[in-house]
Amino acid sequence: MKFSRMKQVDIRPNMTTIELLSAMKNGGFTCRKVALATELLEQMIQDNGCTVFLGLAGALIPGGMRNILRIMIEKNMVNCIVTTGANISHDLLETSGGSHYHGSEHLNDDKLNEMQMSRIYSTLIPYESFVKFETLAQKILKNITDQRMSSQQFLFELGRYIDDPKSIVRAAFLKKVPIFSPSFADSMLGVQTWLFSQTTPFYIDVLKDHSEFTKIVYETERMGALFLGGGVPKHFIMNGSQLHDGLSYAIQITMDRPEHGGVSGASVKEAISWGKVASEAKWIDVTSDITLVLPLMISGVLSRLQD
Amino acid sequence: MKFSRMKQVDIRPNMTTIELLSAMKNGGFTCRKVALATELLEQMIQDNGCTVFLGLAGALIPGGMRNILRIMIEKNMVNCIVTTGANISHDLLETSGGSHYHGSEHLNDDKLNEMQMSRIYSTLIPYESFVKFETLAQKILKNITDQRMSSQQFLFELGRYIDDPKSIVRAAFLKKVPIFSPSFADSMLGVQTWLFSQTTPFYIDVLKDHSEFTKIVYETERMGALFLGGGVPKHFIMNGSQLHDGLSYAIQITMDRPEHGGVSGASVKEAISWGKVASEAKWIDVTSDITLVLPLMISGVLSRLQD
Amino acid sequence: MKFSRMKQVDIRPNMTTIELLSAMKNGGFTCRKVALATELLEQMIQDNGCTVFLGLAGALIPGGMRNILRIMIEKNMVNCIVTTGANISHDLLETSGGSHYHGSEHLNDDKLNEMQMSRIYSTLIPYESFVKFETLAQKILKNITDQRMSSQQFLFELGRYIDDPKSIVRAAFLKKVPIFSPSFADSMLGVQTWLFSQTTPFYIDVLKDHSEFTKIVYETERMGALFLGGGVPKHFIMNGSQLHDGLSYAIQITMDRPEHGGVSGASVKEAISWGKVASEAKWIDVTSDITLVLPLMISGVLSRLQD
Amino acid sequence: MKFSRMKQVDIRPNMTTIELLSAMKNGGFTCRKVALATELLEQMIQDNGCTVFLGLAGALIPGGMRNILRIMIEKNMVNCIVTTGANISHDLLETSGGSHYHGSEHLNDDKLNEMQMSRIYSTLIPYESFVKFETLAQKILKNITDQRMSSQQFLFELGRYIDDPKSIVRAAFLKKVPIFSPSFADSMLGVQTWLFSQTTPFYIDVLKDHSEFTKIVYETERMGALFLGGGVPKHFIMNGSQLHDGLSYAIQITMDRPEHGGVSGASVKEAISWGKVASEAKWIDVTSDITLVLPLMISGVLSRLQD
Repeated sequence: MKFSRMKQVDIRPNMTTIELLSAMKNGGFTCRKVALATELLEQMIQDNGCTVFLGLAGALIPGGMRNILRIMIEKNMVNCIVTTGANISHDLLETSGGSHYHGSEHLNDDKLNEMQMSRIYSTLIPYESFVKFETLAQKILKNITDQRMSSQQFLFELGRYIDDPKSIVRAAFLKKVPIFSPSFADSMLGVQTWLFSQTTPFYIDVLKDHSEFTKIVYETERMGALFLGGGVPKHFIMNGSQLHDGLSYAIQITMDRPEHGGVSGASVKEAISWGKVASEAKWIDVTSDITLVLPLMISGVLSRLQD
Repeated sequence: MKFSRMKQVDIRPNMTTIELLSAMKNGGFTCRKVALATELLEQMIQDNGCTVFLGLAGALIPGGMRNILRIMIEKNMVNCIVTTGANISHDLLETSGGSHYHGSEHLNDDKLNEMQMSRIYSTLIPYESFVKFETLAQKILKNITDQRMSSQQFLFELGRYIDDPKSIVRAAFLKKVPIFSPSFADSMLGVQTWLFSQTTPFYIDVLKDHSEFTKIVYETERMGALFLGGGVPKHFIMNGSQLHDGLSYAIQITMDRPEHGGVSGASVKEAISWGKVASEAKWIDVTSDITLVLPLMISGVLSRLQD
Repeated sequence: MKFSRMKQVDIRPNMTTIELLSAMKNGGFTCRKVALATELLEQMIQDNGCTVFLGLAGALIPGGMRNILRIMIEKNMVNCIVTTGANISHDLLETSGGSHYHGSEHLNDDKLNEMQMSRIYSTLIPYESFVKFETLAQKILKNITDQRMSSQQFLFELGRYIDDPKSIVRAAFLKKVPIFSPSFADSMLGVQTWLFSQTTPFYIDVLKDHSEFTKIVYETERMGALFLGGGVPKHFIMNGSQLHDGLSYAIQITMDRPEHGGVSGASVKEAISWGKVASEAKWIDVTSDITLVLPLMISGVLSRLQD
Repeated sequence: MKFSRMKQVDIRPNMTTIELLSAMKNGGFTCRKVALATELLEQMIQDNGCTVFLGLAGALIPGGMRNILRIMIEKNMVNCIVTTGANISHDLLETSGGSHYHGSEHLNDDKLNEMQMSRIYSTLIPYESFVKFETLAQKILKNITDQRMSSQQFLFELGRYIDDPKSIVRAAFLKKVPIFSPSFADSMLGVQTWLFSQTTPFYIDVLKDHSEFTKIVYETERMGALFLGGGVPKHFIMNGSQLHDGLSYAIQITMDRPEHGGVSGASVKEAISWGKVASEAKWIDVTSDITLVLPLMISGVLSRLQD
């Protein structure tokens, strides 16, 4: 084994994020991991035979990541998305004219409840934003004419009717990036869709998603994945990669721990035993809040891809 | 504000778990929280107007909790279950004659992959257990004759055909405890069900689960919940409780953190702002691996309920 | 590699903690780890050639562990203690007639400040308890006649003058169990000792602790350690074990994470690279709040040692 | 209560870190906290009546933060340092010609032990680096002529004899920034100092540090603190601020959790109940590995201070 000497991180005024990432590679622990993860993401994007999967779990839009996720789609950094329904719902909430607000985790929840402000850690959503969201959701759902769709087909159709250049779902529709949401029913939009289905015969066929997803998996030469959080999106992508030869590239960003065995905190390394990540894969685990790492990483990738 | 003096935890040889819990109430931090959570669980079980919901996420059966969960059903500690598909799948894997093994988180994952042993933190599952599971799954699925079922209807029917007194799904069938699994498709059994649906017309109607779940919610006077982990089960139960007057009792056991805004680590307190937990509710958060807390808690409740 | 089948945890009413631990060994993750750690602790206590070191960091007495720690000393479970000054200070605070109170982590800290109640997570200490502590501390310090002592000598002398059968420091004095506190100055009692030294010439010679500690290390055949938390106590014991052949037994209980490189969250495994833990050592890491694990473990050990 | 609308984080190619921080302020969770913490640090630095205290715990130099910490001293961002002995030891190890290496947390610790490479999570230190460190330490210690010094006096003298423009201890000496290390004995340099004291009469008077530290505390109008990790440095600074009117500014960066009551994970808010942080103080908690946050923050402050 040969090891390289650590130079220590150097900084100077007015650095660009590319320069900061380059300096961070000379440090240790999470500092260096984020720099290496940025390089690895760039590498999987530029590997022509590789389909890049993006797993989205957690409160990404209440955390302010909406524009960054949309830019990733528009700039061809990602080829297929698997997400919880929450990310779709909060995207649509912003489209509807509703909004997220800066609050604090120290606010009194009884008072917030009286004020009709719902709290997601330090972010707040007022009741009227939910009303706007629901109104828009029902308006868009009226366009759905098929009786039975996979979550992927449904979200693609949704994108067709969203008139908002900032929307993630819209951007994915325009770029033909499929979005799967296997646990879609369990979300605000899922509830709206259920209400819609009370008057119009309509089912989400979640088993059909497997047919469509495995088709993508079988047709690609190599698979790469960026897991923002764990949950159903991570598990669903990994289920696909096990049917392939395992992921060739994997980056995981999460604050969850591995000790209780849950999928969200499980190390990427563990997935090698399952054949979900290839033995020879390039992979990295980053232990951090996604909102801290993603702006830095994608600002770096964005700068380098344009060269 | 009046505060009570802490007596410090006292121990002696050959204590019962009831006595240990009673001693732990005299301590601080997690020690006391577990003792209080046990009392709170007992209280919600004995409140006749209260329906007790159990949310199951994470690797509970690979963690050894199968018997305890079944006992909770058999002893009427729980009235309605919401779970990930994984808990159903691992329950069936044990029924099929497959098994989980004691391993270690320090094993070499490349070698485990060669040996066809899949690792969940420190627990291992050999390939032949998955084969047994798949064979049993297909055999049971052949009994399904309806073309379209909610996950709840589907899991109830599954219970009818499981011939294993140790099975959680079987126990729930016998006790008529409904099991919802809104993200069911994303699991090993979900994949088997998809394969089944390739030859037999069959859909899981996840929107229909909302109809059945809200019916239970609307019919009960009060709601109580024990959240073992977060994820879809927690979110789904909370979606229901928001339509009611909020949970009257809530216990959450998780190692996840709140700082990134994800539902799994969100505090119970935060849910008050949403109206998902009532302002006047009794609730407690326990930060621990579930496998450590559940045996102690349920052994305590079991001892007290028989009095 | 041969692996054993997991039987799953079984419970029944009125179990003893010994029976619960035995059942927990049949589970996975932290459940099984705590059962194995209890067996390992028993083993190192019963190994005649092994000196058992106890590292104490964190808020153990505000967490209610005072009696358990004292019982460990009285029942010969531990031969040498390394602790932060806080554990000594809170032991003396209880002796002085001061007390810890049950509070909550959700209390308003501005109001607590006005009420002169200091908060340690969910535990409270009123101002008058600190006054009682300070009065007792100054009274005891008057007995100190040496001008220069190691922290170990100083704490041994302190034990001589504490008239409280519940005191940890007193129990250690009676059992001649040395207590080292290399960071002693940084504690409430450290501040009192500083005030005492303003009028009476007195120094704590922290370098001398190394002489006394290494003497213990060199004279023992084997070393075992139970680390309750990390910090200075863990680092100090490990510094000693590196001069020996490394620890032969090690149990670590902490909630800290390894990813940032700090000693408190560092895995026991990492210490093998330093020679601080022997390659062939028996060791186990438990990720949990100490207050949850210690009562169960020591209640188990206490039951078995009397057989 | 009035809340401001969240604009979501926007990125573009070739941003500077100042621009990135400005964009991050428009996000939520940790993203926004880091932007606000950077502003708060700038504010306390520019408050003329405020003494800025820096608490250093954890493996900062093995994490690559040496240059950044030195720049903070050189650019007058900090007026007083409290640190573990480890940070001093690793600073001197680099000065001695020894070095830290890029490794991985997945390396085999038995093999590393055979190779004489000591691991700190993903960073490695070869045996010969320790030898170089020890040789330099003994060489520098020979210059010490006083028999009894506080840790602060001792570290100041050490700085006089370090001939390395990259050294933190040297920079602090040149800038007359006092460094306190109340737990200094428990470190590699502490052990070297103990060995030195075996042949030359020498004591570290840790009680005297209180006299020197409280003098600084009493002479300043306002106190601000940046806590990088917790442990003894955080506790020692907070002990001082309790004697003052509490901190007027506080920033804490740590991955530790509050639930077990230990000082390292305790929230800044909790310190308000003790009077250690003023009720009207400006403060922020960041949950992250320090190595990830510090380069970004200090690169931002550095850019703004030069304006």
